[in-house]
Amino acid sequence: AVAMPAIAQSAPEIRWRLASSFPKSLDTIYGGAEVMSKMVSELTDGKFQIQVFAAGEIVPGLQVLDAVQNNTVEMCHTVSYYFVGKDPTFAIAASVPFGLNARQQNAWLFQNGGNELFNEFYKKYNVYGLPCGNTGAQMGGWFTREIKNVADMNGLKMRIGGIAGQVMAKLGVVPQQIAGGDIYPALEKGTIDGAEWVGPYDDEKLGFYKVAKYYYYPGWWEGGPTIHAFANLGKFEELPKNYKAALVAGATYANTIMQARYDVQNPPAIKRLVANGTQLRPYPMEVMEACLKATNVLWGEISAKNADFKKAIDTMQAFRNEENLWWQVAEYTFDSFQIRTRPRG
Amino acid sequence: AVAMPAIAQSAPEIRWRLASSFPKSLDTIYGGAEVMSKMVSELTDGKFQIQVFAAGEIVPGLQVLDAVQNNTVEMCHTVSYYFVGKDPTFAIAASVPFGLNARQQNAWLFQNGGNELFNEFYKKYNVYGLPCGNTGAQMGGWFTREIKNVADMNGLKMRIGGIAGQVMAKLGVVPQQIAGGDIYPALEKGTIDGAEWVGPYDDEKLGFYKVAKYYYYPGWWEGGPTIHAFANLGKFEELPKNYKAALVAGATYANTIMQARYDVQNPPAIKRLVANGTQLRPYPMEVMEACLKATNVLWGEISAKNADFKKAIDTMQAFRNEENLWWQVAEYTFDSFQIRTRPRG
Repeated sequence: AVAMPAIAQSAPEIRWRLASSFPKSLDTIYGGAEVMSKMVSELTDGKFQIQVFAAGEIVPGLQVLDAVQNNTVEMCHTVSYYFVGKDPTFAIAASVPFGLNARQQNAWLFQNGGNELFNEFYKKYNVYGLPCGNTGAQMGGWFTREIKNVADMNGLKMRIGGIAGQVMAKLGVVPQQIAGGDIYPALEKGTIDGAEWVGPYDDEKLGFYKVAKYYYYPGWWEGGPTIHAFANLGKFEELPKNYKAALVAGATYANTIMQARYDVQNPPAIKRLVANGTQLRPYPMEVMEACLKATNVLWGEISAKNADFKKAIDTMQAFRNEENLWWQVAEYTFDSFQIRTRPRG
Repeated sequence: AVAMPAIAQSAPEIRWRLASSFPKSLDTIYGGAEVMSKMVSELTDGKFQIQVFAAGEIVPGLQVLDAVQNNTVEMCHTVSYYFVGKDPTFAIAASVPFGLNARQQNAWLFQNGGNELFNEFYKKYNVYGLPCGNTGAQMGGWFTREIKNVADMNGLKMRIGGIAGQVMAKLGVVPQQIAGGDIYPALEKGTIDGAEWVGPYDDEKLGFYKVAKYYYYPGWWEGGPTIHAFANLGKFEELPKNYKAALVAGATYANTIMQARYDVQNPPAIKRLVANGTQLRPYPMEVMEACLKATNVLWGEISAKNADFKKAIDTMQAFRNEENLWWQVAEYTFDSFQIRTRPRG
């Protein structure tokens, strides 16, 4: 994209359209774009308006990045890993198996070069990315039968997409790409044995607990996925400085609010699910270990042929290992004690 | 405070002064106010300027709230628990023993009524509070000798203030109030046996590792302390709406950036400390358990005579117990696995 000269006036009237990858019914994740839009409007005294459209209203949910790239809309709100078909590097900005938790993701993106690294990459697609939400660690999916060991994974038909699906395939899982609304009937008919979605609050709405008894944790492929807002690069560059700041501040505000909303909504949701008969199960350690091993093999395979991916995954892994060295000391032992003594707290 | 009529103009030139409770040398925590100030300036095209003054430049670090209350300065950046002498309720907005971790603190304050609850309380002091930073879980302090059981706490002279000091006192600890710069000589001379400060990055600067060998974790009295920016209530109310939004967005941005900076700076700092001979030690379980028990006794004592405290502590504890019910499922098991497999990641 050719950088346009910045609009000279500091308070022009600007109207943008934002295409979300999410339906309005997923109020927490869809709401992230609305929180950003509202804050940007307030910050600019109503002069910079971003109208939010749900998935399908302008373009289908998975085509929103193309729509921003070609300037059909100025902005989208999506998860970068939806675009691994273009380049697997997209996944790393959001979440990859055995990656960062939500706070580590913020630390990397905001203060350790992550945003700069990915915006250099995103230039190829004519977009500028801003972290704009997080779900926290997700759940590991719903299954109609128990998984007790690695052998139980072999032949399992599971609704899981992207890179996590490629990891699962190395254990013999048959990954399926199925849209949100089609998962319930597939589980009900037995066309699939399992499906991952998000976490208690979102999963409850789709009713999976009625057709799959076992709810596994953790979602090791989404330890703290960042949801991004992407702006068309030329459109972003021509904004006056104060409007650029409004986008950064508005998106970062939404990044905090979305995480807070999930953290407030998930506890009552998981209680309701368990009250409705859901059985919580941890992934067996041998399954987790096998998935970690398969993940590292996959990183080697992709890195051998994709320099952008190699740079980003190596950077993320080095940062992750530093983070967890410290995390295990104060943060983790505090959480451990709080969890252990909760009934007496 | 009497609410002033809002300034009608949407982009007036406004200059405020902010008194920090921190010295410039603590760049991470002091820097939170600068991050907010810079963002507010960018958002308002340089029209709303907040000049940041270090502790002691206008008023001493612990008198900044008074200075905002009586409008000597329009704003301060501090930790609410410094003001437990006025009312112990102040502590709960920041951090209390066995309270919330950093992300839970954000969830409570931003999306479960916490900010509204405390701003109702803060009205008595003529200030409006905005979360503006977090350190994450802190460390549990430096000691010249090992603590192996509850009996070892009896008679221990420890630099620890506020409510955590009151909890420690129930175990026989003699809590000492000592300013940051005076801790090192007190440890060196043996006037005190232990001292708590923040975490690796900040503690390293004060050189405690040279005079105390044992570094304990976790800092169970600061699982995720929120640093606040306080504005004079009348001054805040008379701001135009877009400037109020700029303060909220700027403070929330700083809330994210300070946490990210600590998360980036603490891992290399703890590695350097250990390389310099520091011995890391977990607080013995029986000490943690005794402190939890003492904490709950203290909450009962204060609640019996302070309705504001009772309301806030009961609300926090109910939220904490809900949060940790869910936290133990996906978030904690993801962190556990990541920590356990770190050397192979």
